[in-house]
Amino acid sequence: MAGWRVSPNLALNQQVAARVANGESIVHMGFGEARLPAFGPLVQRLVAGAGRTSYGPVAGGRAVREAAAGYFSRRRMPTSPDQIVVGPGSKPLLMALNLVVPGDVLLPKPAWNTYAPQAELAGKKAFHVPIPTSAGGVPDPGALRETILAARALGRDPRILILTLPDNPTGTLASPKLVREVCAVAEQEDLLIVSDEIYRDLVHDPATPFVSPAELAPPRTVVTTGLSKSLAVGGWRIGAARFPDGPWGQKIRDGVLSFASEVWSTLAGPMQEVAEYAFSEPPELRQRLADSARLHGVVAAAVHRIMVDAGAVCRPPAGGFYVYPDFGPVRGKLGLLGVTDSDSLAQHLLDEHAIVVLAGHLLGDDFGALKFKAATSMLYGDTAELQEQALAAADPLRLPHISDTLTRIDEAFTKLCA
Amino acid sequence: MAGWRVSPNLALNQQVAARVANGESIVHMGFGEARLPAFGPLVQRLVAGAGRTSYGPVAGGRAVREAAAGYFSRRRMPTSPDQIVVGPGSKPLLMALNLVVPGDVLLPKPAWNTYAPQAELAGKKAFHVPIPTSAGGVPDPGALRETILAARALGRDPRILILTLPDNPTGTLASPKLVREVCAVAEQEDLLIVSDEIYRDLVHDPATPFVSPAELAPPRTVVTTGLSKSLAVGGWRIGAARFPDGPWGQKIRDGVLSFASEVWSTLAGPMQEVAEYAFSEPPELRQRLADSARLHGVVAAAVHRIMVDAGAVCRPPAGGFYVYPDFGPVRGKLGLLGVTDSDSLAQHLLDEHAIVVLAGHLLGDDFGALKFKAATSMLYGDTAELQEQALAAADPLRLPHISDTLTRIDEAFTKLCA
Repeated sequence: MAGWRVSPNLALNQQVAARVANGESIVHMGFGEARLPAFGPLVQRLVAGAGRTSYGPVAGGRAVREAAAGYFSRRRMPTSPDQIVVGPGSKPLLMALNLVVPGDVLLPKPAWNTYAPQAELAGKKAFHVPIPTSAGGVPDPGALRETILAARALGRDPRILILTLPDNPTGTLASPKLVREVCAVAEQEDLLIVSDEIYRDLVHDPATPFVSPAELAPPRTVVTTGLSKSLAVGGWRIGAARFPDGPWGQKIRDGVLSFASEVWSTLAGPMQEVAEYAFSEPPELRQRLADSARLHGVVAAAVHRIMVDAGAVCRPPAGGFYVYPDFGPVRGKLGLLGVTDSDSLAQHLLDEHAIVVLAGHLLGDDFGALKFKAATSMLYGDTAELQEQALAAADPLRLPHISDTLTRIDEAFTKLCA
Repeated sequence: MAGWRVSPNLALNQQVAARVANGESIVHMGFGEARLPAFGPLVQRLVAGAGRTSYGPVAGGRAVREAAAGYFSRRRMPTSPDQIVVGPGSKPLLMALNLVVPGDVLLPKPAWNTYAPQAELAGKKAFHVPIPTSAGGVPDPGALRETILAARALGRDPRILILTLPDNPTGTLASPKLVREVCAVAEQEDLLIVSDEIYRDLVHDPATPFVSPAELAPPRTVVTTGLSKSLAVGGWRIGAARFPDGPWGQKIRDGVLSFASEVWSTLAGPMQEVAEYAFSEPPELRQRLADSARLHGVVAAAVHRIMVDAGAVCRPPAGGFYVYPDFGPVRGKLGLLGVTDSDSLAQHLLDEHAIVVLAGHLLGDDFGALKFKAATSMLYGDTAELQEQALAAADPLRLPHISDTLTRIDEAFTKLCA
């Protein structure tokens, strides 16, 4: 038993919670939680589902799988309920895929901090491939080819490509052209694509074109999603996966169901009831999603502006609630403060400015790079009332509790780079 | 990717559900679900916890861990909240243990059908050790020693001993003397003991002495439990583990938390609220547990009697809701029906008598043995009203819906062995 560590974002969140409980005033941008109140109808469905105390099918009941199939079908991915598995979050479904599908894993660099540890838990090696300048969540197609060749030269067998659309941590969305190029590489190199689309309903501008790899390479793409981010119920642990039609997809799904049956049995019944409602997307839920996406977009854009004004290079956010600045351009100034890498940058922000971010190296990026992920979704206020105000506001940035926090962030980064 | 299969009990349950939906009348004893209504206060707590939409600590919040610590402390296992981890069922916690603790696994023969597949998923070998005549859930101490020596001679390294107290599938409870002998072997051979005590609160006679290995070998015993069986909320997926005090326990717990953080994050917030209430054991809950244990005991004893009267050898059930008969004594008669092994016995019962049981070989027992597990917990009626009647009845066996089912089982087994 080597030194075990808790997933760094969850660990950081626990540390911050302890400091806040101690009375410290901290700006917490180190954890990807959509801190918004649970939407009323979701709570009603949880209550309505309380009587669901039986185990039921491993994949989830017929009703929730039909709803999820409808959800994907409405997104240009025709889906039968037999292609769906729901689970306690998308995390366990992703872990199951790692255990079921042979071969090593290719990831964008940076990528969500759980992909690589899951691959390692499954005895695989994870290869981080640099992302293009335009967007993260997908590797640069040329670099992807090179990494595959280099990995094979090392005797490894990369077989699984994980994409994140829109991306955590960069907050960007790969263009259809880029997705197409990456899918072409996957075809040529016979990779399984895992498309993590958990932020899909939080694209800021509804007009942004979105193409899923499941549209372009249907037999080789598994799509995962969940309600944690779009509907702000991370603590309820509700995820779903869509498997390809056809024999390969069936085989992978069988494997995931086998693993599920021995590890978590099924998604809790009341949560299936919630998921059935959410995936059926009635009008009031679509409105809630639109309001949430808009709020996340406005605040992420404001934080993005602060980072760029301070001197960072930063891709403009297009979905979800993250920015991923690179303070490389002001390396000289930061060096004078003892900030020379990703770790000292995050530590300095915490120690000197009480600002929590997640250091880039924890996401597979270079330790020496001056990068971090800032989650902007916990800046909407500490109470449900303030959060609902933020959701309803014509201009959330004018709300005192949000503008005060942004000013505090602005002052900190201005000082940091002065 | 080899041929994947869903855990056989869950798979069987899905098949039966489909046949029942098709209008077939089936006596379902093939699945270990306590088919009783959810206890009202549990539902109230689920509803009260609906607002818990944040992720929170991986191990579970302080309140639920304090409640679980109290639960164990009241059972002669002094426990601090820092020794507790809650999760979505005890299954994922057991899987995490398999991945975290090195070495192969020793199991009773028979044992719950998930232990061995979990060990194999973790790259371990599972050794089934025969159980004593008196009770299952623990291996015969002498056979345990022999198996360890034989495994080592094969170059294997058995390190983990899983016990089930009371037992699934035999429905028996190992005596304190037997537990002591097994713990002594574990001490001598430096094994980690995993004591699955999920049926503990369903010991039929409250006067039955119960000793946990955690009392006898505290630094080397992990205890798992959950609410699925005792409180009939399998579909809610609520489990807990208690780790040993001291550095070894701490290291294992750290590993489990690391795995949890990358695979399921944490137990859903509303379920933590339920668990906090349940583990605090207020008087009305203790009464519910006592009523449930009594009902399970009366019906399991009735089914036991039927099996013995038909000609089987069967240990008398002492806890939980299972019997595990051996029809070896009537092998000659059964052979005339084409029933020659565990598989054909279960199949014959289904085809000829519409009775579903789980064949013994699926639990690690010999394929040639005429054994099965019968779960008696789904004989209480098909509606919440009938089930509540059964819980409240002075003599549940006199309720027509229960006595009719028992008569049907009796007739089937009388005919089988005639």
